[in-house]
Amino acid sequence: MKSEFELIEWLKRQIPRNLQGDIGIGDDAAVLSIGKGPRWLFATDVVVDGVDFMLHQIDPALAGRKALAVNLSDIAAMAGDPVAFVVSLGIPPMMKEKVILRFYRGMIALAKKFKVRCVGGDISKSRQFFASISILGCSKTGHLVTRSGAHPGDWIAVTGTLGGSILGHHYAFVPRLREAHFLARHFRPTAMIDVSDGLLQDLGHILRCSRVGANLDLEKIPVSAAAYKLAQGNSQKALESALTSGEDFELLFTVSPRHRQYLEQAWKSSFPHLKLSWIGRVERGKEKIFWSSDNKKAKAPRLSQGGFTHF
Amino acid sequence: MKSEFELIEWLKRQIPRNLQGDIGIGDDAAVLSIGKGPRWLFATDVVVDGVDFMLHQIDPALAGRKALAVNLSDIAAMAGDPVAFVVSLGIPPMMKEKVILRFYRGMIALAKKFKVRCVGGDISKSRQFFASISILGCSKTGHLVTRSGAHPGDWIAVTGTLGGSILGHHYAFVPRLREAHFLARHFRPTAMIDVSDGLLQDLGHILRCSRVGANLDLEKIPVSAAAYKLAQGNSQKALESALTSGEDFELLFTVSPRHRQYLEQAWKSSFPHLKLSWIGRVERGKEKIFWSSDNKKAKAPRLSQGGFTHF
Repeated sequence: MKSEFELIEWLKRQIPRNLQGDIGIGDDAAVLSIGKGPRWLFATDVVVDGVDFMLHQIDPALAGRKALAVNLSDIAAMAGDPVAFVVSLGIPPMMKEKVILRFYRGMIALAKKFKVRCVGGDISKSRQFFASISILGCSKTGHLVTRSGAHPGDWIAVTGTLGGSILGHHYAFVPRLREAHFLARHFRPTAMIDVSDGLLQDLGHILRCSRVGANLDLEKIPVSAAAYKLAQGNSQKALESALTSGEDFELLFTVSPRHRQYLEQAWKSSFPHLKLSWIGRVERGKEKIFWSSDNKKAKAPRLSQGGFTHF
Repeated sequence: MKSEFELIEWLKRQIPRNLQGDIGIGDDAAVLSIGKGPRWLFATDVVVDGVDFMLHQIDPALAGRKALAVNLSDIAAMAGDPVAFVVSLGIPPMMKEKVILRFYRGMIALAKKFKVRCVGGDISKSRQFFASISILGCSKTGHLVTRSGAHPGDWIAVTGTLGGSILGHHYAFVPRLREAHFLARHFRPTAMIDVSDGLLQDLGHILRCSRVGANLDLEKIPVSAAAYKLAQGNSQKALESALTSGEDFELLFTVSPRHRQYLEQAWKSSFPHLKLSWIGRVERGKEKIFWSSDNKKAKAPRLSQGGFTHF
């Protein structure tokens, strides 16, 4: 069986280019425009019990929250504004109504917080519980950010800390909508993505779409406390978790070097409680990743896995 | 466990009215407008292996075609124009790639036919194959039709023939987009729905949303050849199938009596191969259905089941 990404690429090739969206399939959200109207964002994310959460182990409200949050994160990655979503549920016939209700309440509470409307849905029976949410967004700033504009010389930055998300962050994360709007409005990132598959894989998406490489600074990767905890203090393992484990839902973006200094200052006053890390620079060389440490060339960290896969 | 409709109503009540769409949840598609832009339609439908089709018994292309066709039918029911869709797949790890490819090809072939774009998707593993498609539409005619405008005195009409869809029509049906546009442009139906849950249930949705009743003519229900075949010639059973079995995906609509004569003529010249049946009139009396036969009062047909449920 192909991997998730191979399968997506393979299925994408089945679709004639003129039937794809304005920027083609593969960004966090599709961009659509019709006539002279505004551009729309359109994305979908599906979560499955036993894959994305364990319904029998948690408050189902956390799963409902996550089902919507991952979709909001897709809209944030494009610096868009979420407008409305629809939700399809697959429900096992023996599932308790209380569980469905808690799931729904978690989802709706987050919808209220971000003022995004729940405008429709569908229900089918299925053996395993799943929720497929599709979300529609627009761009109030007018500055949508895709994965494909990174230039050699740009700085690469990431919000928050990475790794160990499985300990709870993947339920509790706040989609970085405010931060994305701030960046788009004032600093026009050249490329952006949310870290859902692991820093290296998601950076890889930017590099491939932008046809560039990167030089990353090993010392600058913001390893989370959860990653250290999960690695029982082993810093090599904690770094590996930060680079590959995924579901961090932080923003990874590239920005022109002329913006770095002012962005750093403005960030600290706008988001004093959210770390921003400058982890490297964009370089020439398609999809190549070089490593440095203390401004010297360094060996690539040894990784036992290639990145989180939802498939 | 609640029925599909009870569950939908119950979940709907969890959503504050101001977080719902312009016409509220419950029509075939949500209607969205933002600022002065055009109105958008947004709908979702999920199909599950073993519920909506049997992947191991059929060409998977038929299932892929159906996954999109049911969504196109939702847009047709509002007299909208489909623009783009996203698709989330749940794929069992042991599923053959050939099956996924055939499913996709069936879906894309129909997308080409109706010039609707496939702009994104998501994949997860799951024990049971499912496909959740969400579709975005607009209104080129400017005349969207909801379920809520039927008036006493209006005629009730239905396209095609009904019942026995399980024998093949539920795979092969052509979403009634052309027909819906023709009706909306020239005859402004007061209410419209696609027959997915069975004529009586779907008429019930129109009656409830429009707060009216109906008088149906037993002789005028267009029973399909498949319904007779399935009923082995028993005309009572065939009628029951036409009234309740569902997945016909024909258009059921109400229209002002002043349009009837010209609509009948125009229909015959525009769609000579598609039957149009005038099955009754809208009456006062919320959700009540009266029956007649040869212009005389008749008893309600005895039904052993209430209507098709996807849940």
